[in-house]
Amino acid sequence: MPKTVSDIGEFGLIDRIHRLIEKEGVKTCGVTLGIGDDTAAIKPREGYEVLVTCDCLVEGRHYLSNLIDPQALGRRAMTVNISDIGAMGGLPLYALVSLGLKAETHVADVESLYHGFLQELNPLEASIIGGNITKTEGANFIDITLVGEVEQGKLMLRSSAEAGDAILVTGYPGQAVLGLQLLQRSERPQDYIDHPLVQAYNTPKHRAREGHAIARSGLAKAMIDTSDGLLADLGHICKKSGVGAELIQNQLPLSEALNQEAGHMELDPYDLVMSDSDDYELIMTCSAENIPKIRSLLASISDAPVSEIGRITEAKEKIQLILPDESKRPVTPSGWDHFKT
Amino acid sequence: MPKTVSDIGEFGLIDRIHRLIEKEGVKTCGVTLGIGDDTAAIKPREGYEVLVTCDCLVEGRHYLSNLIDPQALGRRAMTVNISDIGAMGGLPLYALVSLGLKAETHVADVESLYHGFLQELNPLEASIIGGNITKTEGANFIDITLVGEVEQGKLMLRSSAEAGDAILVTGYPGQAVLGLQLLQRSERPQDYIDHPLVQAYNTPKHRAREGHAIARSGLAKAMIDTSDGLLADLGHICKKSGVGAELIQNQLPLSEALNQEAGHMELDPYDLVMSDSDDYELIMTCSAENIPKIRSLLASISDAPVSEIGRITEAKEKIQLILPDESKRPVTPSGWDHFKT
Repeated sequence: MPKTVSDIGEFGLIDRIHRLIEKEGVKTCGVTLGIGDDTAAIKPREGYEVLVTCDCLVEGRHYLSNLIDPQALGRRAMTVNISDIGAMGGLPLYALVSLGLKAETHVADVESLYHGFLQELNPLEASIIGGNITKTEGANFIDITLVGEVEQGKLMLRSSAEAGDAILVTGYPGQAVLGLQLLQRSERPQDYIDHPLVQAYNTPKHRAREGHAIARSGLAKAMIDTSDGLLADLGHICKKSGVGAELIQNQLPLSEALNQEAGHMELDPYDLVMSDSDDYELIMTCSAENIPKIRSLLASISDAPVSEIGRITEAKEKIQLILPDESKRPVTPSGWDHFKT
Repeated sequence: MPKTVSDIGEFGLIDRIHRLIEKEGVKTCGVTLGIGDDTAAIKPREGYEVLVTCDCLVEGRHYLSNLIDPQALGRRAMTVNISDIGAMGGLPLYALVSLGLKAETHVADVESLYHGFLQELNPLEASIIGGNITKTEGANFIDITLVGEVEQGKLMLRSSAEAGDAILVTGYPGQAVLGLQLLQRSERPQDYIDHPLVQAYNTPKHRAREGHAIARSGLAKAMIDTSDGLLADLGHICKKSGVGAELIQNQLPLSEALNQEAGHMELDPYDLVMSDSDDYELIMTCSAENIPKIRSLLASISDAPVSEIGRITEAKEKIQLILPDESKRPVTPSGWDHFKT
């Protein structure tokens, strides 16, 4: 019978996780004190600001444990946080992982979860330096605090877009939500595990390296990730910057997989690209002259496509979608509201 | 009818909390970017190390919502984390609050929770700089990440106790667990709200100022808080430092309230002082000559009593309790293991 966390107890589980991290995790510079005391201690580098973010995945809410394996779940939980650091122009350094686990959770699944965390952290030379494990009677949850750094003066904000800026986006937003739907509609979800939309849902890519390179270059003005959906996050930029935006429908990036499945499901692919999803692409705004420079910078470090999807306008124009016949349709960001859905 | 979080939605709730913090929270130095972007950004002071900790309270596990009001719960959740920073010799600066809330949670209760957070943070000039709110179907949870600072070279560890050190403890450990029992056994728990043991449970004190002063003075060797219970946390010091310990039963601090209730409940008061509880006192070890200096330092900043309860021994002696007849009884730290209880 597989071992559960209640079989080995909190301290037994912490010991195992600690050993796993020691063995398989990278060592990050600047850690004065790692796992094993009341707090972790770090010595930030001079000339850098420290970024801190936390994001939480709750079972049944952000993931369905029968549709995602624990290692992929670990990757996804960490990616969500790495993306937030990247969207500020920084790189991640240290993670604290707080888990709420039901007593019957398998130890092997917890270890797979940590393998997933390390799979995302190791290539960035970031490490787990602390955390907390607690029993829950309800849904399991994974709450990660990620600490990163950004060169002083290079912080990328939501609030610095200006009318006239071009709007760029990386990758293909909207794929993850379709991947989830594929899994939910299928009688044998495991058959879809290699489907590109399901992969976009299960193990989304973050764009931290891209965000960091953009920030260092000084070529962009505002930046955000698409965690709430393309339109909602563009809406955040507009609200914080006091601007409006025009999106050109024809220029929205449609992946072949999204286009095809949208056809099967009789859904408008452009709505899917703009709506709530669970992708971690970057939206950035920049002056028109910087577009080719940004394209060539990103092409040198990443295979992420970059699409110019519209431009920032005056605030009074709100967000408009320009249709192929050049007519305009006002679009309202909704975004993923946990308590409304 | 009271408003619930599902009535106003995630973004409505975040807006309200943001305004509450803006209005009632202190501003902390070093915050480059507070609530409202993908991450918070801070600029640590030179000559300091950054401390990071996280601790989580789960409804039904760490608190019973019918026995603690939301403001006291907020104080307690923050105190647990402040205590961890204090036990390292640091002071808290910035908190990130991650909440998992059921849809039917009252907005007013969430606001009271934040009042509780601020009640503990404001006097320390620490502030809330970020967080996350998510819906849960199961138990509500409060996961706090607290960032603090400690002067470089002043970090207080569990691992630096030496044979021959005296063992000191602040306050009266063991009171909180009795307070909880009082509430649980009573038919009208609200009648006990002013009972000192119930107060010790509902709104425990942290000793961050005391821990910070001790660290700056360089007078102590090892330090830890009693969050797992006096014996369990002394056990952590022994394990990490490779030492043993002798506790003198007659010198364990017994509060009048604990003594009295232990009598009513026919429990051994000394067992209560040493066992699992939910207090946030400090255990420290120091050379004998520093005891009066530590006493006078703490007396100058705090009304917390300080008791000398024993001494550190060689590892092979493990932890022994010296009884009034001078016989020795081996005692084994158990500590609060979430998955064993």
